[in-house]
Amino acid sequence: MDVADLVAKARDGGPRAVARLVSLVEDAHPALREVMATLAPFTGRARVVGLTGSPGVGKSTTTSALVRALRAREERVGVLAVDPSSPFSGGALLGDRVRMQEHALDPGVYIRSMASRGHLGGLSWATPQAMRVLDAAGCDDVLIETVGVGQSEVEIASHADTTVVLVAPGMGDGIQAAKAGILEIGDIFVVNKADRDGAAATARDLRHMISLGERGDAGDWRPPVLMCVASTGDGIDEFVQALDDHTAWASKTGALTRRRLRRASGEIEAIVVTALRERIGDLREGRRLEQLALQVVEGTIDPYAAADHLLRDLTA
Amino acid sequence: MDVADLVAKARDGGPRAVARLVSLVEDAHPALREVMATLAPFTGRARVVGLTGSPGVGKSTTTSALVRALRAREERVGVLAVDPSSPFSGGALLGDRVRMQEHALDPGVYIRSMASRGHLGGLSWATPQAMRVLDAAGCDDVLIETVGVGQSEVEIASHADTTVVLVAPGMGDGIQAAKAGILEIGDIFVVNKADRDGAAATARDLRHMISLGERGDAGDWRPPVLMCVASTGDGIDEFVQALDDHTAWASKTGALTRRRLRRASGEIEAIVVTALRERIGDLREGRRLEQLALQVVEGTIDPYAAADHLLRDLTA
Repeated sequence: MDVADLVAKARDGGPRAVARLVSLVEDAHPALREVMATLAPFTGRARVVGLTGSPGVGKSTTTSALVRALRAREERVGVLAVDPSSPFSGGALLGDRVRMQEHALDPGVYIRSMASRGHLGGLSWATPQAMRVLDAAGCDDVLIETVGVGQSEVEIASHADTTVVLVAPGMGDGIQAAKAGILEIGDIFVVNKADRDGAAATARDLRHMISLGERGDAGDWRPPVLMCVASTGDGIDEFVQALDDHTAWASKTGALTRRRLRRASGEIEAIVVTALRERIGDLREGRRLEQLALQVVEGTIDPYAAADHLLRDLTA
Repeated sequence: MDVADLVAKARDGGPRAVARLVSLVEDAHPALREVMATLAPFTGRARVVGLTGSPGVGKSTTTSALVRALRAREERVGVLAVDPSSPFSGGALLGDRVRMQEHALDPGVYIRSMASRGHLGGLSWATPQAMRVLDAAGCDDVLIETVGVGQSEVEIASHADTTVVLVAPGMGDGIQAAKAGILEIGDIFVVNKADRDGAAATARDLRHMISLGERGDAGDWRPPVLMCVASTGDGIDEFVQALDDHTAWASKTGALTRRRLRRASGEIEAIVVTALRERIGDLREGRRLEQLALQVVEGTIDPYAAADHLLRDLTA
């Protein structure tokens, strides 16, 4: 495989090359190391927006409306839809989600589904790398859409530059959000389907709960609670404005850099832990661990001394 | 602290010295490494029996009856009661459980509760080390009593030389056991409270399910299903006989050594992983990870190259 050629084509906006690179990430392909090294100088330009919320709040519809607004400004947009319940992963070159169909033929939009189950090394490791591919490929915005259930999904959304929490009226979503710990991670809250009964009450509840909550690195940013009807586009302009406001605030205050540092740290740590686990596995196959265990059983050495030997072998 | 003196006193049967050593394990004390090195030559003599079952099956009563029978043979007995719901840990020198009171003044019995929550490095790491202390202190039998809920509790019981699964009639315990995955780990099954209605049916159900199940390293051992009434002592002699039978079988076939090797391997791996986590933590405090993350954010290096640097530092 000619990695340099593939990266050059992806940077040229070639959808096939981008698809190929994301597949390499999903497969944890041996060439990934070379791919990431080649991509590195071209990363760090894209704005990464995480969108999360319970099933049924209209995440895909909202994402699609957001893509439309960003395309109207001629920005290039990448979408990673992480679906823990989906048996599908990878694959679709031009959009594989029904609600995204309107963008399927737009060469300025790249849409990709990723399954969160069964991925080698876990989702937390694959998503930032796929993000990195879309970033280097010249996307101005990378949208990560995750279902707000399960710790790893919430974690992914929280590692974005800006995290958007979607809720819908009458689903008790405020309470659900509080329980799931996503009140703390939202930079922007959007009440979708705001033409339904109870939308104002839901927004009021959210504002109240946000005012009570402790927030980590948000500084003086006050998370707005917006109303929208994604299916008609009502409120989407205000949503885009809030995204721009948060980006400006985060750049100015250094919050953006801090968050990107945290994301990179997590990415590095995940690779280190995976590498160490592989080494322990190699030692097990090589029977080194078994030899040491035998000495411990016989009382020749104690478990700490055995661990020291294993650590030395691991790090040789 | 004079570790050699403390170990000598524990080997002499001094309950205070044994208590002190187990507390060092619970506290993950810095001297633990020296303690384990000093203990190593004296370990490997005790028979380790794991007892597990749902709350309410009468684990403490059965353990107490078992202790009585083993004491009648003048064996020295250690009991580690691991309780995931207990806020208490450590402490009681002469037995801290009401149903164990009859053994409280017996110098040939050492009883200790361990809380499973909040332990540094986790339960799976502390229990084998506490076991090691009791073994070196001259216990002929070490009984590990765990509630059969939660993966780590089941795991601990399954790492014993002989694993006993307790059930009670009319609790749907057979099904519960199957669900919890403890059918696979039982070497001996005991239906306690066998004077109650449904005891025979429970035993029959268990025998049926065991006959259907796949068993790992059990070889030609057929797990017996015994009946007992621990509160009166009925059936305890047969229970002790079954334990002796399993010990004899496991020694003869090599199953005992295999199981002890597995236990020691797990213990070594847990120490290695804890050590590596501490090193990553040190690097984080030392800002090495942050420096690398900054280079990744700037695109100077890719996350794999950063991980390589971190791995080199970890293993230096």
